[in-house]
Amino acid sequence: MPSRKKAASPQRRSPCPVSCALEILGDRWTLLIVRDLCLGRTRFKDFTSSPENIPTNILTDRLERLTAEGVIARVPVSEGAKRYRYELTEKGRDLRPTLRALTRWGLKWEEGTAIGMKPL
Amino acid sequence: MPSRKKAASPQRRSPCPVSCALEILGDRWTLLIVRDLCLGRTRFKDFTSSPENIPTNILTDRLERLTAEGVIARVPVSEGAKRYRYELTEKGRDLRPTLRALTRWGLKWEEGTAIGMKPL
Repeated sequence: MPSRKKAASPQRRSPCPVSCALEILGDRWTLLIVRDLCLGRTRFKDFTSSPENIPTNILTDRLERLTAEGVIARVPVSEGAKRYRYELTEKGRDLRPTLRALTRWGLKWEEGTAIGMKPL
Repeated sequence: MPSRKKAASPQRRSPCPVSCALEILGDRWTLLIVRDLCLGRTRFKDFTSSPENIPTNILTDRLERLTAEGVIARVPVSEGAKRYRYELTEKGRDLRPTLRALTRWGLKWEEGTAIGMKPL
């Protein structure tokens, strides 16, 4: 069973699970941050150094939203440190099948795509 | 092999297949149209009657983009008719694993979600 299931928001468009998932994940950037985390990238600067060049204001916003949604957690780099890293929660790790499906689709249908990013 | 593989766009952020997939699918609405098509909804008015109430200007834009990307095809309702229906291409049908993964994730992690839409 999930350790933390998020309560329904009153702004939901519908109870459809795809619609609700897209309210969290449905933009051009969010799943790229989840991809980076799956590859072992954990720090703000790691995400900004990914090849898509995410703008820092968008990155800050998405990290806050993903934290609020329980997809990622922010943890101090070391005890008492003021710098943070991010890690996927169970809910976030559970997005791996979605990323795999998108990876297969992109590789099959979009010319010139390739798996070039290596896990850290 | 895919019947039609789309050439790389010069505006691509990176050759990552996830990034390229999100350039087509990464918004709050596009995959809901693909969901509707998987459920047998094919007409403009079918999409507007889905519970999420997609604004018609967004729907028009997304149908044009999905057609241009080869994910859907527009076909006359009957021979010589001026009204159209939409159908998934092979590339579009190949998004079903992505929709299934998002469905499972939403059902597991977002409270109050349910599969309520029936195939037509």
